[in-house]
Amino acid sequence: MGNCAACCRGFWCRAKNPDVRISLPVVCFVWQIAMIILFGVFVRYDEESDAHWSEHKREKNITSDIENDFYYRYPSFQDVHVMIFVGFGFLMTFLKRYSFGGVGFNFLIAAFGLQWALLMQGWFHALDPADGQIKIGIENIINADFCVAGCLIAYGALLGKVSPVQLMVLTLFGIPLFAVEEYIILHVLHVRDAGGSMVIHTFGAYYGLTISWILYRPKLDQSKRLNGSGYHSDVFAMIGTLFLWMFWPSFNSAISDHGDGQHRAAINTYLALASSVLTTFAISSLSAKRGKLDMVHIQNATLAGGVAMGTAAEFMITPYGSLIVGFCCGIISTFGYLVITPFMEKYMKIQDTCGVHNLHAMPGVLGAVVGAITAATASESVYGHEGLVNTFDFKGKYAERTPATQGGFQAAGLCVALAFGIVGGAIVGFILRLPVWGDPSDDNCFDDEVYWEVSLISFVFYLFHSKVAL
Amino acid sequence: MGNCAACCRGFWCRAKNPDVRISLPVVCFVWQIAMIILFGVFVRYDEESDAHWSEHKREKNITSDIENDFYYRYPSFQDVHVMIFVGFGFLMTFLKRYSFGGVGFNFLIAAFGLQWALLMQGWFHALDPADGQIKIGIENIINADFCVAGCLIAYGALLGKVSPVQLMVLTLFGIPLFAVEEYIILHVLHVRDAGGSMVIHTFGAYYGLTISWILYRPKLDQSKRLNGSGYHSDVFAMIGTLFLWMFWPSFNSAISDHGDGQHRAAINTYLALASSVLTTFAISSLSAKRGKLDMVHIQNATLAGGVAMGTAAEFMITPYGSLIVGFCCGIISTFGYLVITPFMEKYMKIQDTCGVHNLHAMPGVLGAVVGAITAATASESVYGHEGLVNTFDFKGKYAERTPATQGGFQAAGLCVALAFGIVGGAIVGFILRLPVWGDPSDDNCFDDEVYWEVSLISFVFYLFHSKVAL
Amino acid sequence: MGNCAACCRGFWCRAKNPDVRISLPVVCFVWQIAMIILFGVFVRYDEESDAHWSEHKREKNITSDIENDFYYRYPSFQDVHVMIFVGFGFLMTFLKRYSFGGVGFNFLIAAFGLQWALLMQGWFHALDPADGQIKIGIENIINADFCVAGCLIAYGALLGKVSPVQLMVLTLFGIPLFAVEEYIILHVLHVRDAGGSMVIHTFGAYYGLTISWILYRPKLDQSKRLNGSGYHSDVFAMIGTLFLWMFWPSFNSAISDHGDGQHRAAINTYLALASSVLTTFAISSLSAKRGKLDMVHIQNATLAGGVAMGTAAEFMITPYGSLIVGFCCGIISTFGYLVITPFMEKYMKIQDTCGVHNLHAMPGVLGAVVGAITAATASESVYGHEGLVNTFDFKGKYAERTPATQGGFQAAGLCVALAFGIVGGAIVGFILRLPVWGDPSDDNCFDDEVYWEVSLISFVFYLFHSKVAL
Repeated sequence: MGNCAACCRGFWCRAKNPDVRISLPVVCFVWQIAMIILFGVFVRYDEESDAHWSEHKREKNITSDIENDFYYRYPSFQDVHVMIFVGFGFLMTFLKRYSFGGVGFNFLIAAFGLQWALLMQGWFHALDPADGQIKIGIENIINADFCVAGCLIAYGALLGKVSPVQLMVLTLFGIPLFAVEEYIILHVLHVRDAGGSMVIHTFGAYYGLTISWILYRPKLDQSKRLNGSGYHSDVFAMIGTLFLWMFWPSFNSAISDHGDGQHRAAINTYLALASSVLTTFAISSLSAKRGKLDMVHIQNATLAGGVAMGTAAEFMITPYGSLIVGFCCGIISTFGYLVITPFMEKYMKIQDTCGVHNLHAMPGVLGAVVGAITAATASESVYGHEGLVNTFDFKGKYAERTPATQGGFQAAGLCVALAFGIVGGAIVGFILRLPVWGDPSDDNCFDDEVYWEVSLISFVFYLFHSKVAL
Repeated sequence: MGNCAACCRGFWCRAKNPDVRISLPVVCFVWQIAMIILFGVFVRYDEESDAHWSEHKREKNITSDIENDFYYRYPSFQDVHVMIFVGFGFLMTFLKRYSFGGVGFNFLIAAFGLQWALLMQGWFHALDPADGQIKIGIENIINADFCVAGCLIAYGALLGKVSPVQLMVLTLFGIPLFAVEEYIILHVLHVRDAGGSMVIHTFGAYYGLTISWILYRPKLDQSKRLNGSGYHSDVFAMIGTLFLWMFWPSFNSAISDHGDGQHRAAINTYLALASSVLTTFAISSLSAKRGKLDMVHIQNATLAGGVAMGTAAEFMITPYGSLIVGFCCGIISTFGYLVITPFMEKYMKIQDTCGVHNLHAMPGVLGAVVGAITAATASESVYGHEGLVNTFDFKGKYAERTPATQGGFQAAGLCVALAFGIVGGAIVGFILRLPVWGDPSDDNCFDDEVYWEVSLISFVFYLFHSKVAL
Repeated sequence: MGNCAACCRGFWCRAKNPDVRISLPVVCFVWQIAMIILFGVFVRYDEESDAHWSEHKREKNITSDIENDFYYRYPSFQDVHVMIFVGFGFLMTFLKRYSFGGVGFNFLIAAFGLQWALLMQGWFHALDPADGQIKIGIENIINADFCVAGCLIAYGALLGKVSPVQLMVLTLFGIPLFAVEEYIILHVLHVRDAGGSMVIHTFGAYYGLTISWILYRPKLDQSKRLNGSGYHSDVFAMIGTLFLWMFWPSFNSAISDHGDGQHRAAINTYLALASSVLTTFAISSLSAKRGKLDMVHIQNATLAGGVAMGTAAEFMITPYGSLIVGFCCGIISTFGYLVITPFMEKYMKIQDTCGVHNLHAMPGVLGAVVGAITAATASESVYGHEGLVNTFDFKGKYAERTPATQGGFQAAGLCVALAFGIVGGAIVGFILRLPVWGDPSDDNCFDDEVYWEVSLISFVFYLFHSKVAL
């Protein structure tokens, strides 16, 4: 018994060994092979991407190839794809010595996650009852990118403190959690959330924050020297910020209704984002000596308006309503960086590297609330009868639902997202505490040299020795 | 009286204080709140982005959602959006120590400007006479981005020498000037200028150059050490260059006519830009010892072909005509960097940080002239009758206008753009000389440390102390 | 005779002089003027970009402007354009001191090449028999970008070792070689290769590798200190990698059939790329001490799946088939970087700076084989009758061709691509050995200072002297 306790202590407390030479290849290979097998059994083209399209077109009396959903959604898909890989990836390059890890591990888990998401979301949303197979088309791959976004947000909270194997595990569990949560919110509760304020941002942020809380490192200040940005890494991060900012209208409109739905979602998001920028600059300047701006605020809080429009973007929130949402989010989010993140780290033991609480959690919750209110106050005078039915999909068994009821369900959706994020994060967090994943020691966090071959020194070294001749 | 003079002198000549802790937040908050109120009173969705679209579709006998203007213009809009934020933003990161200011302030003023432009352009172009409200859709937000471009060009001339508050003021006045100028050129004179050689580039460049002339700093060489590029900042600037270069075909075709108009505008611009690249490399190499190329030329003059095709892109200028325009612009623009910019600084007291005179002013004027000539020589044999009417919009009260007359009006449009740029710039320049805007002192220009928290040193410092062990 | 031999030796062996002050401007000017003349004689708008479109529309009974091919292909075109200029350009910035050359010369030769390609491809594919002129539209400019890609791949093998004049010559000959090869493969053999596994990647890679073999530099290790990446240059290269990776679905679908063809090509490529990422990470980690990842592998081998789907993307290869292709390519390509590139350099005298053999040659050949097998096994039960005819274009004089025969022709196409690459590369390689092109000496390779004004030192220098005060 005492032996066993000692053994356990030994198991849990042994020195960190960030060698992933066996575990990372095994995880990548086995999971990729599993994907291939599952795709082989389950995944086929849908009628719009199958070679039988010309017959399908004739049957459905579709007159032109341009009616293929591909042409409605492909430009938005590509924008979303850029957000996932360049947007999230480069936003996480801001640390002075963790740019490889930021953009590289983002790349890895997104590439795995999107395959896994096609399966999981397929089982819940796109299963063809005729043959039990998942039929994929452009909308599925957009949704897969969305699903991945949830895990990338969670990565933001953990940036620099976890191994790539842990990130793969985080994604392995995060995707099914997302798919179930999304199924409950969108299908069971029949909630509208085209840009995912709840489904993506609230869930992803609380999932990551809970994991970070469980993986709390009391001695993280041993890596303090590296936990900050450098001049050029801050400019790299601005690439991420800007591509997220510019393409967010595509994110929120990518899967909303054809026609006015996509059109309106893009305009509303465009306005909310613009408004966020001004209040972010204002608060950032107000909070510092001599009004100096902080790049971290500009890189992140300017995006909060897009997060908060995720639910209401396709509603008739009006242009000035969008501006108001952006206005509030810029303030709240910047305030979060100034006050809440340090508070959470000090008193709640949550170390949130990228500040996802400020960029995704709070604006996501706000977005859900805004969505619920906008839905509850919708009326036929504003939307027109057809418009109301289309926008909220009051069809079939939901034909009798009123806007007020819809508002209640929207609020319920937020609770589901929170619950899945926190409970899922707790479970996955405990799994990630197992000392077998190769995570770095406390004095080795935020350092690319742990997982990457880095030729950092040579260049500056070369410069000084061959040229400047000190 | 003597007292008053001394007082005035004291007012104008007091030491610069670049503290913007009060002024920047106040400006951002107040103006953003003003935007919200004005949007609340004036701005609504247009019929294609409103939830009544399905009824509108039925009324107008539109058979498919794909006919919504969103699908014609959204991909071009996103490209233009990238040009405004990443293109202009990163092009201005070339200074070794002003990358934050380049991309960051560009972000701020563009986000403010696009809201203000929706209002100003709305009052002039999109007012619904039925209810006195501005109805916005995809074309309006493209136009808002265009309008912002004028102010960003002006910023190029002032880069590193002004405070963010001055830039906000520049934008506050620049947008209405642009909107009035645009109204006179496009509506009163009925001039064609889809890519804005006159309306955007000529106006924006002379607006900025005139302001720079009035804000002349005789002792600017006190900041000489920072007024140049670094190796990595030059590579960052190439991101801006390339996104501008690649997406310029979208810029010039974004609001031209559906169908052949957009198609032709994209092809012409594509060709002119390619041609500019070769002559830029040629002149740059020819002008330097051992034929060494200068990054400043490559970053800027390669874009001149796009500027110069702004007016004629949608005309039947022919593919080789486009190549000739690009050919000339590459030469003129590179020559400008070599000769005219130093000349202007030395003899005309115009300090033009980014060389907007070479990239926007001269090619813009040339583009206007090319447009006037191409319009004047248009004929039914080349365009077809319908083509001519569509391209030049010879409808309604302009049904009798001949191509020759149109050519004259095109030339008149150029004069209007020049006049608005110079007179507007003079007025705004005097306003910006008021010593209340927190601009930097002469020995503090081109330095991010004035307005940003910069953690520049730490990384190199860390490197040397912990690793190289000199 | 002895005199002549000495003279010859003198001619061939004289010291390298990388001064391009005369040759580069002459080449740029003369060739650009030639382009203008040839465009003047040969190139006009096609019916969809000509002002007569409204008449054409009426004649062909086209009901809506949205049917203009511009709206089917323009978003894909812009993605391809980004791949050519930012993708290839930034991928080649990875060398610590050759970022200007990587992105800058890529820009130059792509801008020249696309004009030249419009002519060469036009003569072979788009000549209007009625008037002997080339009629260009959106599909032609996509094809021109594709054609350029072949030469840019070849540049990858030569990066850092050639002068810009040599690159222009490489492009001058590469484009016609490509156009003839493409004509034989696509038209004479009637092979399908929408994303160019054979036509673009196999040809381009062997063209470049053969040239590199002929230009072998035995003393290249004199430049060893610069033949490697730096920390920030590796992050810049990731910009190139990600834009290539994200937009590859557009590359492979850009010119495939409207409707299901484009839709399916995008999905297949998306999946293959995702699969490549996992196996690349696996092999990279497995091969290094402590499992450390190598940025070179991540930057390149992750893209191999896109290369290998170039032929089969539009076929019914099934989603899991795409995953398998990507799986294999990630392994092969990473293995190439680990083993084959060093082997080729040591024993075969082929110096391949970017490893194009691993990224383009092997995956290209594999893609051709996969395409041949997929074509040979195609059946009406999978494609439907119409689908089979549309996908393989079994129309007109090819109406009788069977899938099995098509498979044979696909394989023949690969041989043509290989032959053109190797023979063409040998001839052009000998031309490039002429000692008149200003290439750098062996100890000056991979160095931007040879062809660019570089202000590299100043910044670090400034830092140390003004701030750190060592």
